[in-house]
Amino acid sequence: MRPESTRVLDAAAVAAVVTHVGLPGLFDLAVDRVHRVLAEHATGRVDLRERDGFATGPGLVEWMPAVRHGSSCVVKIVGYHPDNPVRRLLPTILSAILIVDAETGHLCTVLDGTFATAVRTGAASAVASRLLAAPGSAVLGLVGCGVQAVTQLHALSRVLDIEDVLVHDVDPVAAAGFAARARLPEDIVRVTPVAEIERHADVLCTATSVAPGAGPVLPGDELPAHAHVNAIGSDYAGKHELPVGLLRRAVVCPDDIAQAVREGECQQLNPDELGPSLTELVARPERAEPLRERTTVFDSTGLALQDLAMAELLGELAAELGLGREIELEAGGADPRDPYGFVAGAADLSWPLAARAGA
Amino acid sequence: MRPESTRVLDAAAVAAVVTHVGLPGLFDLAVDRVHRVLAEHATGRVDLRERDGFATGPGLVEWMPAVRHGSSCVVKIVGYHPDNPVRRLLPTILSAILIVDAETGHLCTVLDGTFATAVRTGAASAVASRLLAAPGSAVLGLVGCGVQAVTQLHALSRVLDIEDVLVHDVDPVAAAGFAARARLPEDIVRVTPVAEIERHADVLCTATSVAPGAGPVLPGDELPAHAHVNAIGSDYAGKHELPVGLLRRAVVCPDDIAQAVREGECQQLNPDELGPSLTELVARPERAEPLRERTTVFDSTGLALQDLAMAELLGELAAELGLGREIELEAGGADPRDPYGFVAGAADLSWPLAARAGA
Repeated sequence: MRPESTRVLDAAAVAAVVTHVGLPGLFDLAVDRVHRVLAEHATGRVDLRERDGFATGPGLVEWMPAVRHGSSCVVKIVGYHPDNPVRRLLPTILSAILIVDAETGHLCTVLDGTFATAVRTGAASAVASRLLAAPGSAVLGLVGCGVQAVTQLHALSRVLDIEDVLVHDVDPVAAAGFAARARLPEDIVRVTPVAEIERHADVLCTATSVAPGAGPVLPGDELPAHAHVNAIGSDYAGKHELPVGLLRRAVVCPDDIAQAVREGECQQLNPDELGPSLTELVARPERAEPLRERTTVFDSTGLALQDLAMAELLGELAAELGLGREIELEAGGADPRDPYGFVAGAADLSWPLAARAGA
Repeated sequence: MRPESTRVLDAAAVAAVVTHVGLPGLFDLAVDRVHRVLAEHATGRVDLRERDGFATGPGLVEWMPAVRHGSSCVVKIVGYHPDNPVRRLLPTILSAILIVDAETGHLCTVLDGTFATAVRTGAASAVASRLLAAPGSAVLGLVGCGVQAVTQLHALSRVLDIEDVLVHDVDPVAAAGFAARARLPEDIVRVTPVAEIERHADVLCTATSVAPGAGPVLPGDELPAHAHVNAIGSDYAGKHELPVGLLRRAVVCPDDIAQAVREGECQQLNPDELGPSLTELVARPERAEPLRERTTVFDSTGLALQDLAMAELLGELAAELGLGREIELEAGGADPRDPYGFVAGAADLSWPLAARAGA
């Protein structure tokens, strides 16, 4: 039997999903799926491996595997190249996701992971902020105005009643273009110095490509006592966006303790200075309740489980809509023990053993 | 700028490469490339991560990353499901390979990995056997007659003057069909009891799906003193094909020491009982010379570097022949900071912040 075909969900297929479901509806689904997959982690139905990768000169190429037992494995391949936008007009993060049948090893789907990464990173901040932001949080500060800042805003605005958006970027062009990229009226978004953002933000997201060792990206002294920070840029040994003084004053909740200690803001803390993980808070939300009036930090390094949830969501929506196309990727044929069964019958595959032996 | 397109080399494209280059020529190239990539490892130009994976009920889904610095990263996703052939008429090993631009994170190529895995595993045994088999080796024994046995034979016959092939499989149907799958006349291939194979084989390959704890697959007492064994099936904690007595008597050369100690025949040995690795022998072939008259074992667990070499080879041949098709996988658009630039202009992406805030 030929291996089954592989479904390709390219950029056009993902775009069709967005057009059909609508961006707000898609973010609602993503927040729900990310929340659920974190809750499922405690049950053992899903599992993940920590991100690993190769440092490749100007950036990183990484792989992020997760599994839904009895169903599928998801491996996201993701590049992080902060020189992409300026040098090549390409996104900093480029990615592809594979969905593999856990029972057979068959590659079921290959899909764009660039959009999925941006959406699920926003969704993770929304899950954290819904638990940890003070009631009535209405002013959102964004430090860093790239792709990820847009999806932070969009996801957060599905769980908080955001009224004002204060933005900053070391590149003024990036800051000035943010409102248009966020599809918001100019009067809701104000380009603002970091120190002022810090004084007014109820919720603040750092989403920068600050170089390892070059942080922090804000002073951190004047944040309101009730402020919640989503620190999403730190995902690399030596890279951090927040000052250690802020981290020590706040309750720091990593998405995954082991990964955050290696790559996140938690690199700056001792193990006994860490708060509960987001997975723990999702499982026991009553632990988050007393933290809402305090300064809190979500140390978001990005989890393969979030990619699993997002790949499943996009895969299901595409299937409902009949999107994507099929390719016959895997070599196979009528006889599962024949390595050449996929080669057309006309090809001469006879093996020249005798000729060789006599040579 | 839109991200560049991604080239798909599906089963038909790989088949066209085989048809054009011919199987013997392709094996010659594969043996050469695998040899060269192992030699390059010492220079630091290429690197790899050990295989990792999820145990998924009946099998494994694994990822195998390697990098050619300054050029590309290769990640092979590979399933190992020994119940596939009987239960589903699918190959035990199904695989896909991704080639990612190390400088940008762009997914350059996705290609079948099923055929590549079978060929490169044969090529690795050919590299080892060329170094370690006794001069004049002409009788090849194969224990296990699946896909991998065919490519073991084909690769080995490019570096040794094989005259007789003795085969065994616990499934008599698999053994009986081997000559046809190997594209050889029936009189060169003889189905033979394991004990007799062992007595006559100059070179022996074990390529079985023996379950963890159920090995060994041969007694190992009567192998000729000059015999060379390629043990390729052991790649799983607890799985082994060879008896420890044979391993202790032989010089055991793993492909990668760390991986072989965890997953290969070397699980059965103490660290001080291991011989030089294949990488060491390729770098210093004079170390192999005195081993050729002794009993030697190549403990082949399978290296991501071999997949890198094979992906590069197939990618280059396909490019020369103009094979494959392009897909626009990665979401991107004119503005590298816009997460939605790939969505058609007609879609309504305006963001309902005010409405939500007022709700």
